[in-house]
Amino acid sequence: MDPSQVDVPPMKDLTIDNITENVQKINSQCPDPRLKYLMERLVSHVHDFARETRLSHDEWMSAILFLTSVGQICSDVRQEFILLSDITGLSLLVDSIDHPKPPASTEGTVLGPFHTHDAHTEANGTLISHDPQGEPCLVLCTVKDTNGRPISGVKIDIWETDSSGRYDVQHADRKEPDGRAVMNSDDQGIFWFKAIVPVPYPIPHDGPVGKLLKLLKRHPYRPSHMHFMFEKPGYDHLITALYLRHDPYETSDAVFGVKESLLIDLYQTNAEQAQKYGVPEGTKLITYDFVLVSEEESRKLREQNAMQAMEAQGRRMKLYKGLPVPDLD
Amino acid sequence: MDPSQVDVPPMKDLTIDNITENVQKINSQCPDPRLKYLMERLVSHVHDFARETRLSHDEWMSAILFLTSVGQICSDVRQEFILLSDITGLSLLVDSIDHPKPPASTEGTVLGPFHTHDAHTEANGTLISHDPQGEPCLVLCTVKDTNGRPISGVKIDIWETDSSGRYDVQHADRKEPDGRAVMNSDDQGIFWFKAIVPVPYPIPHDGPVGKLLKLLKRHPYRPSHMHFMFEKPGYDHLITALYLRHDPYETSDAVFGVKESLLIDLYQTNAEQAQKYGVPEGTKLITYDFVLVSEEESRKLREQNAMQAMEAQGRRMKLYKGLPVPDLD
Repeated sequence: MDPSQVDVPPMKDLTIDNITENVQKINSQCPDPRLKYLMERLVSHVHDFARETRLSHDEWMSAILFLTSVGQICSDVRQEFILLSDITGLSLLVDSIDHPKPPASTEGTVLGPFHTHDAHTEANGTLISHDPQGEPCLVLCTVKDTNGRPISGVKIDIWETDSSGRYDVQHADRKEPDGRAVMNSDDQGIFWFKAIVPVPYPIPHDGPVGKLLKLLKRHPYRPSHMHFMFEKPGYDHLITALYLRHDPYETSDAVFGVKESLLIDLYQTNAEQAQKYGVPEGTKLITYDFVLVSEEESRKLREQNAMQAMEAQGRRMKLYKGLPVPDLD
Repeated sequence: MDPSQVDVPPMKDLTIDNITENVQKINSQCPDPRLKYLMERLVSHVHDFARETRLSHDEWMSAILFLTSVGQICSDVRQEFILLSDITGLSLLVDSIDHPKPPASTEGTVLGPFHTHDAHTEANGTLISHDPQGEPCLVLCTVKDTNGRPISGVKIDIWETDSSGRYDVQHADRKEPDGRAVMNSDDQGIFWFKAIVPVPYPIPHDGPVGKLLKLLKRHPYRPSHMHFMFEKPGYDHLITALYLRHDPYETSDAVFGVKESLLIDLYQTNAEQAQKYGVPEGTKLITYDFVLVSEEESRKLREQNAMQAMEAQGRRMKLYKGLPVPDLD
């Protein structure tokens, strides 16, 4: 590199008080206005964190080693950084910001680290969980738009644990996907399947995130739930889950995913339903009517919320590819 | 786990506006007051960052994957998280906070990721760099206390790159440490050795941190320098480095390590020195008088600075094991 091309502010004698300004200056050469803004806020917060806590070298080194161990335990079937984001509430926050929901629509929640891309596509009525210890459960759902019109052809990803509280990928001898499926809503917006009643389970806590929870005196449990993800062009991508009401961990989810509107009661299949869906009468029953927001409506709401939040923070901003950046004009 | 033992605030319906308060509540069970304070500030800053930037799900996922790759490239001889901390100015900041220096003492700077624990202990006068392409350099130093008294028996770690700008650990065929040594100051506080003239070099930029620097349009270079680390019971641990004045990267160090007081001029050995130290006349010469601070003086200054900073921030704090925590009495 030709040193004469070095076009940065002269930085010598960096101190507690001037380091932030100098890092911001050198980063301000970034040609992407959004990355520049993200880095500006990130550096400001990280430095303020160190100054407000008088972060010691030993604490800094512990953090370096902690983050390294979080990265190193990650694999094709384990994402410990997502877990870390989940248990600090960041995942829920980002989902809420990115996927604002108008009143009548289904709220989103955390994705979690156990979604996979290898689930088989199944027809309505399929049994998707083959754990013989699981309590059978019929799941009857619809997908509609905010005007109450059924949406057909929505791709729906569904995943849940087995009766021991473990996802298929947590079994070393996993050969085929189980407890998960991809379905498509029919022309009445209906999708239905046979599964098992969800159970509470701990998030993986044998790694660094589990150690952190222990130091914080927090339990690692999630209340019983079943994950759903909805995709169809023109509609806002919906990542959500249904939670069993009165679960012991309903109010202390380790990853902050519960929302009042996503709590459901577990019913029993009546004689008519039993005959119609081919299950024994009394089989446990989950029903839910999901409501998707159009991409356009979601985008408008997100941009409107963003500009309102920026105004409330006293920042003069404009939108760049739908996201706020400083308005320097 | 017995659900009745779940002693946390009920959390349902978590939103952009109440998620932070709820995460703080659940973390407030932490029995260690310092970890509790660190987590409280961390969660507050991370959430504010997401709210101030309206962090999108895609950006969040990019960050998750970036941090994962930073963790995964780490090895026994590569610490990419330290690099990340270095290029964002955090390392310099933490060192400045943790090791405050009274006027007349030697300032500290970034440790960097290339210190190892396997350097051989060498006697005064040893040649520590065996690169035949390197320009020979005599290094004559003293270690004194803030009253100007020599300190004997200080353990000094020294490390520098070879003439190609690479540390020994960056060579795949490394068998023995080179370009590094541990020395001990003699009873006059003197230590001296033969090495090579330091050269500028890029920090490792073939990994995720290098990619980030490129996106920020920053160069990865460090100005020519030689690392020193001083340890002796009773004295504050000093991590520092000497920088060659007028290096092309003197004012744009990728890791923000340069300080005016650590800049040195490269001299040439005169006839008398050449004879005394057994090098050809005209050999390049570095001299420096290091001044260590006592542990007691450093601790007092650190605690005083901490309490002043807390007061300036309007925080009512007390010291716990020498570090600030909220004063709740």
